[in-house]
Amino acid sequence: MRFPAPPLPYDPVSDHLREECGVFAVHGADQSALLIALGLHALQHRGQESCGIVTHDGSRVYAERHLGLVGEHFADGETHHRLPGAVGIGHVRYSTQGATVIRNVQPLYADVRGGGIAVAHNGNLTNSRILRDELVASGAIFQSTSDTEVILQIAARSERASASNRFLSALKQIEGAFALVALVNGKLIGARDPYGIRPLVLGDLDGAAILASETCALDVIGAKYVRDIEPGEAIIVDETGTVSERFAPVRAARPCAFEYIYFARPDSMIAGISVYEARKEMGRQLFRDAPADVDVVIPVPDSGVPAALGYAQAAGVPYEMGIIRGHYVGRTFIQPTQAKRDLGVRRKHSANPPVIKGKRVLLVDDSIVRGTTSRKIVDMMRDAGATEVHFRSACPPIKFPDFYGIDMPSRDELMASLQNCDEMARALKADSLGFLSVDGLYQAVLGAARNADTPQLADHYFTGEYTTRLADHERAASDKDRQLSLLVDA
Amino acid sequence: MRFPAPPLPYDPVSDHLREECGVFAVHGADQSALLIALGLHALQHRGQESCGIVTHDGSRVYAERHLGLVGEHFADGETHHRLPGAVGIGHVRYSTQGATVIRNVQPLYADVRGGGIAVAHNGNLTNSRILRDELVASGAIFQSTSDTEVILQIAARSERASASNRFLSALKQIEGAFALVALVNGKLIGARDPYGIRPLVLGDLDGAAILASETCALDVIGAKYVRDIEPGEAIIVDETGTVSERFAPVRAARPCAFEYIYFARPDSMIAGISVYEARKEMGRQLFRDAPADVDVVIPVPDSGVPAALGYAQAAGVPYEMGIIRGHYVGRTFIQPTQAKRDLGVRRKHSANPPVIKGKRVLLVDDSIVRGTTSRKIVDMMRDAGATEVHFRSACPPIKFPDFYGIDMPSRDELMASLQNCDEMARALKADSLGFLSVDGLYQAVLGAARNADTPQLADHYFTGEYTTRLADHERAASDKDRQLSLLVDA
Amino acid sequence: MRFPAPPLPYDPVSDHLREECGVFAVHGADQSALLIALGLHALQHRGQESCGIVTHDGSRVYAERHLGLVGEHFADGETHHRLPGAVGIGHVRYSTQGATVIRNVQPLYADVRGGGIAVAHNGNLTNSRILRDELVASGAIFQSTSDTEVILQIAARSERASASNRFLSALKQIEGAFALVALVNGKLIGARDPYGIRPLVLGDLDGAAILASETCALDVIGAKYVRDIEPGEAIIVDETGTVSERFAPVRAARPCAFEYIYFARPDSMIAGISVYEARKEMGRQLFRDAPADVDVVIPVPDSGVPAALGYAQAAGVPYEMGIIRGHYVGRTFIQPTQAKRDLGVRRKHSANPPVIKGKRVLLVDDSIVRGTTSRKIVDMMRDAGATEVHFRSACPPIKFPDFYGIDMPSRDELMASLQNCDEMARALKADSLGFLSVDGLYQAVLGAARNADTPQLADHYFTGEYTTRLADHERAASDKDRQLSLLVDA
Amino acid sequence: MRFPAPPLPYDPVSDHLREECGVFAVHGADQSALLIALGLHALQHRGQESCGIVTHDGSRVYAERHLGLVGEHFADGETHHRLPGAVGIGHVRYSTQGATVIRNVQPLYADVRGGGIAVAHNGNLTNSRILRDELVASGAIFQSTSDTEVILQIAARSERASASNRFLSALKQIEGAFALVALVNGKLIGARDPYGIRPLVLGDLDGAAILASETCALDVIGAKYVRDIEPGEAIIVDETGTVSERFAPVRAARPCAFEYIYFARPDSMIAGISVYEARKEMGRQLFRDAPADVDVVIPVPDSGVPAALGYAQAAGVPYEMGIIRGHYVGRTFIQPTQAKRDLGVRRKHSANPPVIKGKRVLLVDDSIVRGTTSRKIVDMMRDAGATEVHFRSACPPIKFPDFYGIDMPSRDELMASLQNCDEMARALKADSLGFLSVDGLYQAVLGAARNADTPQLADHYFTGEYTTRLADHERAASDKDRQLSLLVDA
Repeated sequence: MRFPAPPLPYDPVSDHLREECGVFAVHGADQSALLIALGLHALQHRGQESCGIVTHDGSRVYAERHLGLVGEHFADGETHHRLPGAVGIGHVRYSTQGATVIRNVQPLYADVRGGGIAVAHNGNLTNSRILRDELVASGAIFQSTSDTEVILQIAARSERASASNRFLSALKQIEGAFALVALVNGKLIGARDPYGIRPLVLGDLDGAAILASETCALDVIGAKYVRDIEPGEAIIVDETGTVSERFAPVRAARPCAFEYIYFARPDSMIAGISVYEARKEMGRQLFRDAPADVDVVIPVPDSGVPAALGYAQAAGVPYEMGIIRGHYVGRTFIQPTQAKRDLGVRRKHSANPPVIKGKRVLLVDDSIVRGTTSRKIVDMMRDAGATEVHFRSACPPIKFPDFYGIDMPSRDELMASLQNCDEMARALKADSLGFLSVDGLYQAVLGAARNADTPQLADHYFTGEYTTRLADHERAASDKDRQLSLLVDA
Repeated sequence: MRFPAPPLPYDPVSDHLREECGVFAVHGADQSALLIALGLHALQHRGQESCGIVTHDGSRVYAERHLGLVGEHFADGETHHRLPGAVGIGHVRYSTQGATVIRNVQPLYADVRGGGIAVAHNGNLTNSRILRDELVASGAIFQSTSDTEVILQIAARSERASASNRFLSALKQIEGAFALVALVNGKLIGARDPYGIRPLVLGDLDGAAILASETCALDVIGAKYVRDIEPGEAIIVDETGTVSERFAPVRAARPCAFEYIYFARPDSMIAGISVYEARKEMGRQLFRDAPADVDVVIPVPDSGVPAALGYAQAAGVPYEMGIIRGHYVGRTFIQPTQAKRDLGVRRKHSANPPVIKGKRVLLVDDSIVRGTTSRKIVDMMRDAGATEVHFRSACPPIKFPDFYGIDMPSRDELMASLQNCDEMARALKADSLGFLSVDGLYQAVLGAARNADTPQLADHYFTGEYTTRLADHERAASDKDRQLSLLVDA
Repeated sequence: MRFPAPPLPYDPVSDHLREECGVFAVHGADQSALLIALGLHALQHRGQESCGIVTHDGSRVYAERHLGLVGEHFADGETHHRLPGAVGIGHVRYSTQGATVIRNVQPLYADVRGGGIAVAHNGNLTNSRILRDELVASGAIFQSTSDTEVILQIAARSERASASNRFLSALKQIEGAFALVALVNGKLIGARDPYGIRPLVLGDLDGAAILASETCALDVIGAKYVRDIEPGEAIIVDETGTVSERFAPVRAARPCAFEYIYFARPDSMIAGISVYEARKEMGRQLFRDAPADVDVVIPVPDSGVPAALGYAQAAGVPYEMGIIRGHYVGRTFIQPTQAKRDLGVRRKHSANPPVIKGKRVLLVDDSIVRGTTSRKIVDMMRDAGATEVHFRSACPPIKFPDFYGIDMPSRDELMASLQNCDEMARALKADSLGFLSVDGLYQAVLGAARNADTPQLADHYFTGEYTTRLADHERAASDKDRQLSLLVDA
Repeated sequence: MRFPAPPLPYDPVSDHLREECGVFAVHGADQSALLIALGLHALQHRGQESCGIVTHDGSRVYAERHLGLVGEHFADGETHHRLPGAVGIGHVRYSTQGATVIRNVQPLYADVRGGGIAVAHNGNLTNSRILRDELVASGAIFQSTSDTEVILQIAARSERASASNRFLSALKQIEGAFALVALVNGKLIGARDPYGIRPLVLGDLDGAAILASETCALDVIGAKYVRDIEPGEAIIVDETGTVSERFAPVRAARPCAFEYIYFARPDSMIAGISVYEARKEMGRQLFRDAPADVDVVIPVPDSGVPAALGYAQAAGVPYEMGIIRGHYVGRTFIQPTQAKRDLGVRRKHSANPPVIKGKRVLLVDDSIVRGTTSRKIVDMMRDAGATEVHFRSACPPIKFPDFYGIDMPSRDELMASLQNCDEMARALKADSLGFLSVDGLYQAVLGAARNADTPQLADHYFTGEYTTRLADHERAASDKDRQLSLLVDA
């Protein structure tokens, strides 16, 4: 079937890494679909491409999956009638694995011997290609190209008696990063990968169990935060209560550093640490790492705001809104051919000249990826009359690719992978450029130094040290590039 | 995902059996999708609920499946760009097996070891529930509730080397009625069930092979009729030519009698016999079986027209359009509450009083199913001034259910299963009622008597004698009623 | 605003004149919108491009206008809630005047001093350009390019006290052909042009007054036919009853001949004459005018059927369905480039070879306009094995343009305007060609000869004698061709 | 015709006044429609309900009007093909006058004697009802219920020779607030009301003339700001250049105070004054007017941000993001029935506890209208652990209704119209409440005191002193409440 091109509420002129997914689940609350819709809406920043909800009413499973935003599909008064039941899971997604076609929109569902399994997944498996090839060779038919489906296929073939045990046995075979919520015969299962790379928290709403990627989604429905799911832990919720099972050894979590830097909402707590406070502290550390003599500190909105506030406070320099962000970003507009300049970035960001003119300006952004937007913003400051423009990144230089579910440009597009700091400053036409150091990052988030033996964060972006083995990646390139499916959904 | 309610171009006030599906396929013609669209359009009378086309361009497989009519989705100038390739298959469907959700719309597709298989199916398998249960028990995940998917699942698990051999081995395991077209790694396969219940013909368009449910679909694209596919025969078409294989013993076909009576288009030939001529001859035989002394013969349009012409010619009585059929039937209109009569049938059929008033009228319809429409039409004739109203059915009384892909009311809704001819006449308020005899049917179609040992037609509707064993039907009722899937696609 | 291209349920390969509009109105029945929807549906053959309903509930006026079919927009259970009231008017349209944009879809509505006026119009005014120019010069702003709007503008400026009198004063100024229904401050007004060119009938449904273009629309709701509205008569219906007023001298009607030949539904009565019987009689007269020695008479479906039956009965030759018409005509399909023949006509009409092969065939169609379809059908007969093909038109040669609301090709596209009968026969590749004579037409419809002084039908198509003066047409060409509006509704 | 409910990107839980409209126009640039689309997108904050563009290509006028956002309808690559020409006007709207139906969406267009006029209007006329009644009484037919249409109707009836003179004569008859752009026979006209209540600026893009409601729309296309249009001035742009005409006496502008307080984008300049700087200064003045001893200053995002920054700087207290605003606000979600609290405000605003807990918090919002949101935000602060919560409004108490195009609640819903400051503080459950004074407002915007005789701003919201007479408002209430149209567009 055919679908219209999805809306792009996330502005394509942005130059950030993209989070891939958010998950949310409820067990034991009437009209669970309405709670899930609100929870997914609060997680919308984690994926704007598609959304889906699956519920269970005690006998049947109800599914609805869409391209587009949660508010476009699940805000109406019919949602809980179309999706009845007190148990359910939901998903928002920006695709990293599997083309953006409806067959890949999560939650995925399968009828298996003795019941049905639905699963929604944040993260990326690092051995899914190998597992998929084995399954297809023995006659499995995949309905999607999503890595998540291997979990369903393994569970379907497991010899174990109960559907939930079959699901747990599948968890032991997969590798990589995953925060999962699953509906297995009316039970809710939540699981987090053995290193806790992706976040997953447990909450409580008047006795109902809630699982969510971030605490901000608990807050929006008024649920209390209980605890983070542990690395290698699965919890199984049914009417009799909540049981915890381990499918991997106990170890301390290594949460993804970028959750603190950019992905998570500032009002979320990850591993008990306020994201907003961490970001402000990154700004303060950034001032220590890369001070400058300037008249005004200006955030690149909106993600640079907390670090800019921290920087300005540490530096004792006024903080001003020197860049105005338009609220109605959407599709990229076609430009008139006579336009001499790129109007794209102006559609999103406008300079606010009165606070720039004649000033030495320091810009704070959360990160620099390709550098394309940064360059335009430096230009915009000079056009508005800045006498000096200094640029600061509130995270270290991004040099290495991700395999755990983050959408990144290829390595030869990463500015910091190609150039040193001076070269980058020249390319951006900035009077100076500075980055937060890796140690500054650890101090800001944890108030402690990096432990070189067992780093406390997943920080491969900056260090090249990956948390897990990368089985699919290590296969011969020719084999990896084979298409997952011959099918093109026209 | 959610879809709007499908259009209902087929008028719900109708009281006919419903054909289930039509198939069409092309091998070796540029822009095959355009030919398939035209072919499916000519077969639209066989299914108006959904339509789909799958093509292969030498490396990839392209699929598009929709609820609605062929002309709504495949008439535009982009069809062949979205669906490139010189090989393809298509399907129109009125669902008998599997709920009307997009996951059941055909052709179905699966990536399997060593390639991909797409299949489109007219008919119904009589052992699919048994096969499905075995497959699920061993870990298969079904993506639809369609009986057709068991063919894909069996082929996926076959140990045979080539994908086409694996497909053929699946054909040996299925029972029931099927006329199939399949795309297997770029080869086109056509197959007809061991008794040839459902029709499938081979055509030629300047060297390209065409497969179609009816010859009228060959005519519309200007292809030449080559021959009917034989019962138990599969033909495999690739660049090197066409090969015939048998997956069941050679035997004479027993085509479904209702293809002649109602389903097929009058300009089609089935087993070399003109459907129009067969219908006119049914009218002539009907006059022999059930004569009447009347002033005018009136067809119930449009399906009663040929038999009425034959009856009128045999009886030497004028044939008149006493009932006008509206061309813009569509959704059932909401009726005003003050309406004292059922306006529904009038929306479709109107009496034409000048040819009725003061006359003894004989109505000819192709069949009587529930009798609901027949009763209204008798009323309408009396309202228009008929002095007598005689009703004739151009097929024998329909008493037994179908298991081969026809949508029928349950047996206790079949008028002829509940009442004898006199009771029916009273119920219809007709002055007389008459049916074509089973022998008259055989004479009309074949010019020969029924062979009681090996009847030449599938005629279980009238005789209760089924062509094949009915394995699913013979299982315990409790087992049969189990749901195929727990999933409700909201 | 922008709209999707309208559906084309009427097949564009057809080669017929096109009726322009149908009107339907109700006064005094609850849920009037539901009755209007059913009535318009029965008149759908008169216009498939747009439809609209306006109702009045005693205080407010409710309007809904759409591109597309009645069944697509007004069949649902909300129609009477969106359009409440016991009084209402409706319209179906195939545009002849004014581009097909929503601002031209009828009924048109205007708030005027002392109330509101809605009007729906079948026909075409012959002095609307002159009136419009005068109105614009004095400051009137037109909201459409429809000729109908001049009636509203004149009524708005009338000095007469009551809105209905202002409407009637407008009727005295307009010329041409019109069958109007109007809602004026809760009163229903129906009016027919001074010569009665376009049809309008009055019906009764349990005390409610009904106005309709054809009697078939009365039948569909179970209303009784009362009488035809007279030429130059307006009837005004309110709660106190029905009043007749004359706005033009009493004279006998000259109904448009083409209503009998092609436009009206065969089950309608026009001026008390059965359209079906008139058409059959045209067939009989056609045999007298143009006999032939043939084996079989074949109608060009569906419009040629009654005349073919009449011809076959008069000739004593078998009548057969030698051409099968597909029921799912819709958009024109894109053709494959390798198609050697025009597949368009085959999509609509298929030959039925068993009744053609080896026969001398006589085809009967209702008329010949451009001759394009006729030529293809002759070809199709020969391809199917006819030994001779004779063509008969059940109306006289069409030579002159229309100005009364019929969509015709320009004169240099009218085959009979360019060629004599022999040339046409050669162009069609027919063995013979024959037409009904003008006298045959009068005999068939009226059973009387044409009265040369005051012809009883509007027959300018054949004779060039127009019923009224043609004021707009007589203006200088340069002036006429001026655009009605500078606006292009993108 | 019917339309789906419009999207509501503007969050309905907001409690702000609503701006009514924005206008943008271009003369003399190729692909003017693309520039207009970009300009309207930059003005989207002034109206999110509908948008429209009209262009002129030298001979024809092209129009497209939609419900919804600019980016949904005018971002694609076809916009300039559908709307060709180098001259054009555009409009975004949040309706205050005239129901939200497509017939009211601007620009409005009329064909008049000697050409066509399109007009787009920001503001509200205060004598439009009186003018409309006079026009209807003399036969004018209005196509909308918009006050703007009286301008077209007066121009249509003007006796003056040229269309632009007729348009100017209409300007002399209307009263109230208006910033207009109009297309008159290919000329562009811009006009501002006699007191300059609504803003309108002139820009230059490489020789092309640009008109816009705000300078931010000039910036987005890279145009240079030339000057503000003067009160009572019309400028007429054609190929020969730009001419200024006066239709009212020369006087100093009284721009609407709320443009500075809330409506305009912070990066715009109004009358040469930076909106951002004015707002920061309002924060500083607010500190002087209503100081408090607190630990942290928190803005109610996003509109409270500049004033909060100013307040924090003046007070020497840390500024923190204590409230996080979700970016994906949209439709209001249905709430679960078991939800014990209003989840609506949480969907838009979330507390950020780390900066609130244990602190004395001062909230700064731009204004207080009904107080509904304010109360929830105070609650939210206490829930997050604030020890004291002080609330400050960066504008004076809003007590009086508007008649110049602002959407306000009725007077008995305005909190400050009903209660004094202490009562309001108790109702909001705030520890203290403070407002900017009227003098503080003047100081912040103009750096000067209010001139009581001829105030420099339109400040009736606070003072009850209206800038113009209010003719419609002064009519008898019974007369005013009469409906503008009997028509309900279903």
